[in-house]
Amino acid sequence: MNEVRISLVGFGIVGHGFMEVIRRKRDVLRNQGLDLNLVSVTDITGTLYDQDGVDLDRLRDARTLDGIANMEAIGQAAIEEIESDLVVEVTPTNIDHGQPGLGHIETALSQGKHVVTSNKGPLVVAYKKLNELAEENGVMLKYEATVGGTMPLISLIENNLVGNKISNIRGIFNGTCNYILTRMVEEKYPYSYALTEAQELGIAEADPTYDVEGVDTAGKVVILANSIFDMDVKYSDVDVTGITEITTEALNLARERGYLVKLIGDIPKLTVKPMLVPRRSPLAVGGTLNAASIETDLSGTITVTGLGAGSIETASAILSDIVSIYTTKPNTL
Amino acid sequence: MNEVRISLVGFGIVGHGFMEVIRRKRDVLRNQGLDLNLVSVTDITGTLYDQDGVDLDRLRDARTLDGIANMEAIGQAAIEEIESDLVVEVTPTNIDHGQPGLGHIETALSQGKHVVTSNKGPLVVAYKKLNELAEENGVMLKYEATVGGTMPLISLIENNLVGNKISNIRGIFNGTCNYILTRMVEEKYPYSYALTEAQELGIAEADPTYDVEGVDTAGKVVILANSIFDMDVKYSDVDVTGITEITTEALNLARERGYLVKLIGDIPKLTVKPMLVPRRSPLAVGGTLNAASIETDLSGTITVTGLGAGSIETASAILSDIVSIYTTKPNTL
Repeated sequence: MNEVRISLVGFGIVGHGFMEVIRRKRDVLRNQGLDLNLVSVTDITGTLYDQDGVDLDRLRDARTLDGIANMEAIGQAAIEEIESDLVVEVTPTNIDHGQPGLGHIETALSQGKHVVTSNKGPLVVAYKKLNELAEENGVMLKYEATVGGTMPLISLIENNLVGNKISNIRGIFNGTCNYILTRMVEEKYPYSYALTEAQELGIAEADPTYDVEGVDTAGKVVILANSIFDMDVKYSDVDVTGITEITTEALNLARERGYLVKLIGDIPKLTVKPMLVPRRSPLAVGGTLNAASIETDLSGTITVTGLGAGSIETASAILSDIVSIYTTKPNTL
Repeated sequence: MNEVRISLVGFGIVGHGFMEVIRRKRDVLRNQGLDLNLVSVTDITGTLYDQDGVDLDRLRDARTLDGIANMEAIGQAAIEEIESDLVVEVTPTNIDHGQPGLGHIETALSQGKHVVTSNKGPLVVAYKKLNELAEENGVMLKYEATVGGTMPLISLIENNLVGNKISNIRGIFNGTCNYILTRMVEEKYPYSYALTEAQELGIAEADPTYDVEGVDTAGKVVILANSIFDMDVKYSDVDVTGITEITTEALNLARERGYLVKLIGDIPKLTVKPMLVPRRSPLAVGGTLNAASIETDLSGTITVTGLGAGSIETASAILSDIVSIYTTKPNTL
């Protein structure tokens, strides 16, 4: 049995989902030889710690750690001080400076701990540096959950399209924008109305800037450019246009001609902008779905589609990354 | 450097594509630590063999082995007699008795050789038996190329959706049928005309029975049922209806109501039949594309789309299987 002691840093929506996924899947994975033991959970209020594994049932109903008994007043230091093999970093994304995630990930890697994260910030700000740090310390840094929602995009390319040269990735990487555009064309809603509806449904945030201005999509473009295309680009290298200026009339005109308008991120072109997509194209998915078309030299174009976000869904991508660390031979391909 | 001595059995369209993929990608893979050395190629006319690697440039322009100098008059025995680590089995599919592929695969596995195949027949006829044989001999049997064309369906589920419970797979698994149905609805062609066009373009075979009657799709349903759902089913367990009775009127009536008609294979339901698919659905892909929607408990529904077939594309799936044999730790998950 391969025991993996995990420290979870961040206990928001994704952190809660991760705890729940461990709760649901621990027995199944144990039967397959992998024992995922959550030894600590840290948020801004402190750290819950138990070397035998924290009580998942008790955590289940908590929205934050605040008020949970036996919590210790250590924050970021927990990453250093607690004996663990792997850190799951799921604090909120900041695309300008990457903190606090950047510091957490640097600390963990320096301590020889594997890191799995859903936090785009650190990777957008310091992709190369973090990967070098992982290599120097002989550990892995995995980040499937940062791009493409539930679509297993990075691992699909790395594991299943081996030998293929990837020439282009074009995709819908933001479920909020896709939902708004879908409602505008299907219900003929103006932008502001579709946005309000999305906010009421919890699909858009109170401050939707990050999504609708294309910032989130551009962050994903940076990560894919650096990881899949081995580029060395920053957020400022991406040419970004959001969806806020799109009119219902333009969408309907496009539809009459057999096209949908989607917010498309393109790598290696490094653009994020509204583009025409033929209705018959596999990229022409509606609602909160994400989709990405991968152009390869051997396998033609492969498209993958999945939900854009969600607590359990994102946590599932994290779980998949963790398992891959322990099932893939190092130093090969 | 991990040297893998490969025997290729079958030198039709897929075999030729595999040779070409090795030719193109050998250097790239060598740089990554995996040296794929094609030591023999066998077809019904005999075997070309060279322990230092057969001359790929010479093979490139050959349609069959017949007439190639230095060929030896050994057929199936080559699998036993030639020293190799892995057999690529790509002879034509026979879904009733699985031969000659079944014999080839049994021989290879019994000799302690890994097997990668694009041949549905042996897996439809003897999935459990072949997998037991592989296990007894401590080798692997991989068959991504048998289902879903270029979509990396099996490896996607096994590697990238780890921890997920798969409740359902529904998909378009035959590019020929999808092409015919697409042309019938878009051009208002009758079935017979769309079929003739597909034959002229090389998309349908002279005898299209295998595709249009749903036999090919049903074979893929059997393989997915046995492998992903751990069932033990045969071809006769699948309820199969093809596309030959579909009228252009029915397709257009469906379209007016927002649906497309697609030949859908369903697992674990074990059905192959024309079904209504909402036009907005990720499964509503046209032309020769294949698509499969995978319902999971953690990651929602993931859909993957890719070309239905092709020499290089199928060979690419075989290559990916080979690489995975040498990069995945045995006896884990």
